[in-house]
Amino acid sequence: MTTINTVEKDFRHYLREISAYNESLMLIHWDMRTKIPNHGVEQRSEVAGFLGEKIHKLETSDKMKHFIDALKNDTTDPILKRTVEVCEENYERNRKIPHELYREFIMTQSKSEAVWQEARQNDDFQLFQPYLEKLVDYNKQFATYWGYEHNIYDALLHNFEPGVTTTMLDEVFPALRTSLVSLLDQIKASPVKPDTDVLQAHFPKNDQEAFTKIILKQMGYDFQSGRLDETIHPFAIALNRNDVRITTRYDENDFRMAIFGTIHEGGHALYEQNIAESLMNTPLATGTSMGIHESQSLFWENFIARSHTFWEANYQEFQSYAPQHFRDVELDQFFRAVNEVKPSFIRIEADELTYSLHIMVRYELEKALINGEINVQDLPKLWNEKMVAYLGINPPTNREGVLQDIHWAGGDFGYFPSYALGYMYAAQLNHTLRSEVNVDEIIMTGDCRRIKQWLSEAVHQHGKMKKPLEIIKDVTNEGLNPDYLVRYLKQKYAAIYQFN
Amino acid sequence: MTTINTVEKDFRHYLREISAYNESLMLIHWDMRTKIPNHGVEQRSEVAGFLGEKIHKLETSDKMKHFIDALKNDTTDPILKRTVEVCEENYERNRKIPHELYREFIMTQSKSEAVWQEARQNDDFQLFQPYLEKLVDYNKQFATYWGYEHNIYDALLHNFEPGVTTTMLDEVFPALRTSLVSLLDQIKASPVKPDTDVLQAHFPKNDQEAFTKIILKQMGYDFQSGRLDETIHPFAIALNRNDVRITTRYDENDFRMAIFGTIHEGGHALYEQNIAESLMNTPLATGTSMGIHESQSLFWENFIARSHTFWEANYQEFQSYAPQHFRDVELDQFFRAVNEVKPSFIRIEADELTYSLHIMVRYELEKALINGEINVQDLPKLWNEKMVAYLGINPPTNREGVLQDIHWAGGDFGYFPSYALGYMYAAQLNHTLRSEVNVDEIIMTGDCRRIKQWLSEAVHQHGKMKKPLEIIKDVTNEGLNPDYLVRYLKQKYAAIYQFN
Repeated sequence: MTTINTVEKDFRHYLREISAYNESLMLIHWDMRTKIPNHGVEQRSEVAGFLGEKIHKLETSDKMKHFIDALKNDTTDPILKRTVEVCEENYERNRKIPHELYREFIMTQSKSEAVWQEARQNDDFQLFQPYLEKLVDYNKQFATYWGYEHNIYDALLHNFEPGVTTTMLDEVFPALRTSLVSLLDQIKASPVKPDTDVLQAHFPKNDQEAFTKIILKQMGYDFQSGRLDETIHPFAIALNRNDVRITTRYDENDFRMAIFGTIHEGGHALYEQNIAESLMNTPLATGTSMGIHESQSLFWENFIARSHTFWEANYQEFQSYAPQHFRDVELDQFFRAVNEVKPSFIRIEADELTYSLHIMVRYELEKALINGEINVQDLPKLWNEKMVAYLGINPPTNREGVLQDIHWAGGDFGYFPSYALGYMYAAQLNHTLRSEVNVDEIIMTGDCRRIKQWLSEAVHQHGKMKKPLEIIKDVTNEGLNPDYLVRYLKQKYAAIYQFN
Repeated sequence: MTTINTVEKDFRHYLREISAYNESLMLIHWDMRTKIPNHGVEQRSEVAGFLGEKIHKLETSDKMKHFIDALKNDTTDPILKRTVEVCEENYERNRKIPHELYREFIMTQSKSEAVWQEARQNDDFQLFQPYLEKLVDYNKQFATYWGYEHNIYDALLHNFEPGVTTTMLDEVFPALRTSLVSLLDQIKASPVKPDTDVLQAHFPKNDQEAFTKIILKQMGYDFQSGRLDETIHPFAIALNRNDVRITTRYDENDFRMAIFGTIHEGGHALYEQNIAESLMNTPLATGTSMGIHESQSLFWENFIARSHTFWEANYQEFQSYAPQHFRDVELDQFFRAVNEVKPSFIRIEADELTYSLHIMVRYELEKALINGEINVQDLPKLWNEKMVAYLGINPPTNREGVLQDIHWAGGDFGYFPSYALGYMYAAQLNHTLRSEVNVDEIIMTGDCRRIKQWLSEAVHQHGKMKKPLEIIKDVTNEGLNPDYLVRYLKQKYAAIYQFN
């Protein structure tokens, strides 16, 4: 027993060291995106590189292997057990990639992001093509090293959504797509046309910020354990559960960016703020997957903040912060406008209904790329064909098409499905939540902490103790099921666009 | 040659790693003092502890010793040579302290700071006394381990002002004190009484900030390589020469705190921004001593920003940012008010003349403590006696007396003299500068970068390549000499207070 206890103590200290470097790295990222002066960027990137390498070394060291071997069969403490499991998985996956290959990948990756920026700016796919080809190739090699059962793409999916497979997606996505496309047709055919012009009015930044902070407090975001800053690309970042920061962007001519965006990031932040304290300083103290994380942000952004009840409860407050202009806009008019459905080229500007269609375009293309069924050079054409097929619109430029997202330039393949998965998870959680709790009544009180509490118990607290589908199963009593999302969207848009 | 080159390459990489942790730690400190949410503090302190320990380990490792031994006789590159020298000194000094003793010290130190906070708040010296006794004792032990030639206090002085000894201070300080006290008597006897009431007017934070930024730009502070934030205790911090941040505190009823304070921190920041690029990622890429650093901040705060010429050049601009009120305050009236001399209890609020007297009180007491000539329990009494003897005022409480500064609670002995040294250095540099460059003419142009350039060539660029007294010698052709400060103060106050 003494030996085990000593090993365990050393292991915990070792994990704290990793946590310390991780927290430093997260602070560096936050600072680089919000506060750093221009000339500081170059040196800071090097510092980030050093810390990243250090963390990687600690996670794949012989010492780590020694801890894993010593503790994996001997422990009965469930947190320690799961910690060792996650460490082992990281260890095994990282050790499988030859060091030299990984280094080449990292170098290509950082060059690619710069090239992609230029390519997007100049609408020049050919400039980016050779880099993308390399990145696809690295990902194929990685996937082969990691191994998979049925589809090579599964090995990549695992990085972002462990437990979810290509087989599952291929079952769920086409069904979802059919429903969404048919719903879209009904909406297009509807005589109702929300007037989004009513949303345009000069709305000073400070007032947007003040209103947003009120909503964040309603959600239960703890400003004693976080802060809100301004940035170009909004994000949420957890330094630890007691310091989870949000950033947002203010468009003084369109409040939607800041208000819905902050609520979205606030959903991510609530997840990280409410992970159980007992998981601190272990690799379990973070969201369990990209999909579950996205379920939390989308839940608050759409299922709460785009609901009619939410605006019933908050429109008067909103009007008191908003410009004079909004006093002439009726609640229902406003509600319809923030819920307009309209196929558009850019994923991050898409509405609730068409969003998942954007994801499917990407999923199908990246799966085919990794499986060697299509070539990088054909991407622009294939992209546009799918956009026409699913959304009925044809991007006039690659900038508004295949070049719009940074993910592939960053070498991330297997990431995109998380967004649509997050949506389906959110709808499933929303369904269960509403069967247990009177959500509308709570929203009307102007204090949504009861909802946050439900989510914390169901999802947040567990961190990585549970896998994504385990969470969904434990809460909803079933697996991934797209029906809830379809049902929710049908009901919502039938009311707004007046069809049956 | 190949071996040396390989060792040198490895050494540089090793130093970059130390730099990376240092930069991370500096960012953590900056964040903890400016942005961190309350609940994040505890965990962040642990992270800082980890990084500090890591840096300490790297600086005292066998590997470091190996680098030092391999490179110290073989190199002709002056930067590398000096780098090895500084590394060796750090290595030797740190290795001399038994690990266990150092750990105990660190633990006592952090407890002491908390106890000191409480003691100061409640004006309760006895609460703090046992901690201070321990800290004095640790410092005596350290000094003994480090070794010294003449006075045990020298070993501590060395940490902050290498090359300066107790013998030197004991020669310089009494002479300086006599002059200052006699000057103070003349001022007290003068019928001129500057009216500081004219400085009191509600001055909105944003306007103070806007004016301060103009002055920082005049000084040549590079906002592309820095930023200005708000904090409780103003400071300057260098993450690296391309990211040197300033913080300030705004008192809306007294602009002096923010404006002179920011100029002071700006002086520190200019030093760090202008260290030669070739020194980056070595331990030489920082100010050479506390005293030289302070010479830079005091130079700008007092020798420039409290000069008549400075306000001739900037008073109109100041008035345009300041409240209406200042339009009725004449330049000369204003100038006299910001240069009022008046003995007061709190060091950091002291005027240019009495400031050094505050330092001497502390120097004499800490030297006597470390030499075992006085006891901690007698400090309050001795403190007050010296205040009466040098400044003619008797602190009514220990809070306004011996408990006011954090330095001793932080375990720092030997630090205080740097402040007075910095003042003397500044006066010496100021004298040489003015003999070479027409400072007043430059100030009147509203662009002081020529002055900054002179200071960069004389001081900044060298980082730790030169020792403090080497810098003074190279620039002024002599050693530490208090006469310049005395002459400067005499001339200044004779004009303001109209005596001869």
